[in-house]
Amino acid sequence: MNATRDLVRFLATLPTQTLPDEVLDRTEELFLDWLASLLAGRHEHPIPLFEALADQMGPASGPSQRINAGRTSSPYFAALVNAAASHVVEQDDLHNSSVLHPATVVFPAALAVAQDIDASGAEFLRACVAGYEAGIRIGEFMGRSHYRTFHTTATVGTLAAAVAVGSLLQLDEDGFTNLLGSAGTQAAGLWEFLRDAADSKQLHTAHAAATGVNIGYLTRAGLTGARNILEGPQGLAAGMSSDADPRWLHDRLGERWALLETSFKFHASCRHTHPAADALLDLMQRERLTHDDLAQVTTHVHQGALDVLGRVTVPHSIHQAKFSMGAVLGLIAVYGNAGLTEFRDHALTDPRVAAVRERVTMVHSDEVDSAYPARWLGRVTVVTTDGRTLSGAIDEPKGDPGNGLSRAELEDKFRRLVAFAGELDTATTDTLIDRCWALRTLPSLRGQF
Amino acid sequence: MNATRDLVRFLATLPTQTLPDEVLDRTEELFLDWLASLLAGRHEHPIPLFEALADQMGPASGPSQRINAGRTSSPYFAALVNAAASHVVEQDDLHNSSVLHPATVVFPAALAVAQDIDASGAEFLRACVAGYEAGIRIGEFMGRSHYRTFHTTATVGTLAAAVAVGSLLQLDEDGFTNLLGSAGTQAAGLWEFLRDAADSKQLHTAHAAATGVNIGYLTRAGLTGARNILEGPQGLAAGMSSDADPRWLHDRLGERWALLETSFKFHASCRHTHPAADALLDLMQRERLTHDDLAQVTTHVHQGALDVLGRVTVPHSIHQAKFSMGAVLGLIAVYGNAGLTEFRDHALTDPRVAAVRERVTMVHSDEVDSAYPARWLGRVTVVTTDGRTLSGAIDEPKGDPGNGLSRAELEDKFRRLVAFAGELDTATTDTLIDRCWALRTLPSLRGQF
Repeated sequence: MNATRDLVRFLATLPTQTLPDEVLDRTEELFLDWLASLLAGRHEHPIPLFEALADQMGPASGPSQRINAGRTSSPYFAALVNAAASHVVEQDDLHNSSVLHPATVVFPAALAVAQDIDASGAEFLRACVAGYEAGIRIGEFMGRSHYRTFHTTATVGTLAAAVAVGSLLQLDEDGFTNLLGSAGTQAAGLWEFLRDAADSKQLHTAHAAATGVNIGYLTRAGLTGARNILEGPQGLAAGMSSDADPRWLHDRLGERWALLETSFKFHASCRHTHPAADALLDLMQRERLTHDDLAQVTTHVHQGALDVLGRVTVPHSIHQAKFSMGAVLGLIAVYGNAGLTEFRDHALTDPRVAAVRERVTMVHSDEVDSAYPARWLGRVTVVTTDGRTLSGAIDEPKGDPGNGLSRAELEDKFRRLVAFAGELDTATTDTLIDRCWALRTLPSLRGQF
Repeated sequence: MNATRDLVRFLATLPTQTLPDEVLDRTEELFLDWLASLLAGRHEHPIPLFEALADQMGPASGPSQRINAGRTSSPYFAALVNAAASHVVEQDDLHNSSVLHPATVVFPAALAVAQDIDASGAEFLRACVAGYEAGIRIGEFMGRSHYRTFHTTATVGTLAAAVAVGSLLQLDEDGFTNLLGSAGTQAAGLWEFLRDAADSKQLHTAHAAATGVNIGYLTRAGLTGARNILEGPQGLAAGMSSDADPRWLHDRLGERWALLETSFKFHASCRHTHPAADALLDLMQRERLTHDDLAQVTTHVHQGALDVLGRVTVPHSIHQAKFSMGAVLGLIAVYGNAGLTEFRDHALTDPRVAAVRERVTMVHSDEVDSAYPARWLGRVTVVTTDGRTLSGAIDEPKGDPGNGLSRAELEDKFRRLVAFAGELDTATTDTLIDRCWALRTLPSLRGQF
């Protein structure tokens, strides 16, 4: 368990390190992007159910913000509702090689606790960095076999959230060891729900973030956990992975900032659809095709895309359409865009989208699969109605680190997502954006969002 | 998924069935036995940590009792603390073939919700029966491979607790299908903590019961879950078992009452130690041996005993001693008893116990292993200091259905466990016992315990 020990030591000593400006900048950007997803999710099913649960089970007020409800509660329930809401519109960030959505589990837990203990913006950012760095490496460690059955953001997300909380609560090496043990033994979340378009995705992030909060406080109070939960013979990898590789756990700690590799999501769909969506868009623009020109669209994909997307043929809900390769490419072909508005207004009802959807197939590609998960390659072959066979290819989907979003583009995405929920006026929106860009200087986060 | 459908139909129609008197009697007995474990756990580490968490995160009062604290809260936190406390002294019930401790997850969840919705004692008992019947069958379904890495009471316990809550909330077939989907995707709990004598066992039951409560209310409000979480290709068995058998899920529903097969625990140690403990006790009484006569004690055990007990050589805590075959047999040999008092006062400190402990070994037995988990056989071989080789064997440990505890013996155990915590006077103790025996007639459970 040297790898775990190294990771724990890194986490315990992070407060003594100076973080690169680039890391702090990106953390603010990821936070803004998370806040956009949270605000956009406000009215989406099943978010009101989680808000009602917090009303019933939690205290009527407290130190931590339930942002969408405009209420406060204990850190547990604030983390729970904010995590559920930020994972529903499928616009939150993703780290490629771990296949982890870090924002939706790390930020809700860290924000709830930072508001509880009245930490500064700088302390908050540092804790979030800890959550990202640990969560991403644990996700990589768990390997592709884990992701085949388990929703990594749910399972590993519990540890990522707990680490961010542990950082705010200033745990030492022993504390982080216990924290990982307790969080790891609460890791849960299976992909089976996708087949039925059931509501588990938000239940998963709610559980991960809220459990991370509880584990943090329990650990600080003296709860012990397994000392080798990641690598041990009855631990997380033993139970839920067949290709775990401990080298990832301590991969270039303090030199490689995995947080910087996190992708922003441009399309409002499952990330596994993005490479093909960008490749098709690129091809259609280059060849000046319209949706009417598409007789057949073949996407060449990695196994993970087949595992996650393969079960949806005809989507019956907007959320399910986001996990349908055909529906996503249909929106791209007809509207040139697969944003929240296109999904809401057209994904299930536009017959042109349905027509394209029925012409889309996915096939396994060795080239794409062997590059995955480090690189998410987009490869499509189109047969046109006039009989031509054309190929499209992109190597870095929009939003990937090498093809990222500028602060102006992130602000634009923020405004679009906020407008989608239709709640905030321009002045409030501007204030929130300014606050995110000033995060590292805020003396307190209480009531700021 | 016919098996799941049958199970769900059984659960949804249980309210229209008349339960056999024998089942109601036993449910009251199991409840009394659970309450004893709960009260005995009050001061044990780490229970006060969970009480503090409920103080911090939950409302200051509510409809549901936090029994040990003498306070009330929302159903979530009442279930959480009552579940943690009832699984710490290792005296709560166990169902053999599922290797599930049903009481510590089913009763806390059901009691918290029954008090919330003001259900009657009869409705409460029926819901608990539903939780036992479903949980035991799901545990059997998950198989021995699951238990090798996962703490079944933690994982399957989440579903058992949710089913009891769903019964109180009067879910229909569709509701129970969604409930199982959501509860199944939150199932968590690994054995790794045993190696370090860490505090996860109580974290596990707290999570199972409290999550079961949340899932129940969320499902009633409309949260959907995977429709085939048990048998599906990315479901619970796919992710966490290699020998799942769906036949168990609908095994003789309504005819076989699995609840009646549940064992009461006589010794205050891990149930895997009980068969050998009873066999040694029987042998020593028959041959009139004292601990000084034991030169070598070999226990012939099933693989599950090796998996769970094998990692403890020298116990460093009382809880760890309960998972040490040597320590348990040491107490049996020296004191003729391995109850809470013997563990607290002698398990770690009496050199005679340590001397026996060092002479105990476990070896795998094909005979015992092939009978397990349906039957838990006790087989020991003793070499005496004067050179004789003697064998002891029992086929049903004390507390097993064929060797059960009478109501008088259960009352005696209740009094011993309550006295261990040193809180309640005789009159209060008598009142609690009477209330358990009157459970099916109580119009309300609010404030009753």
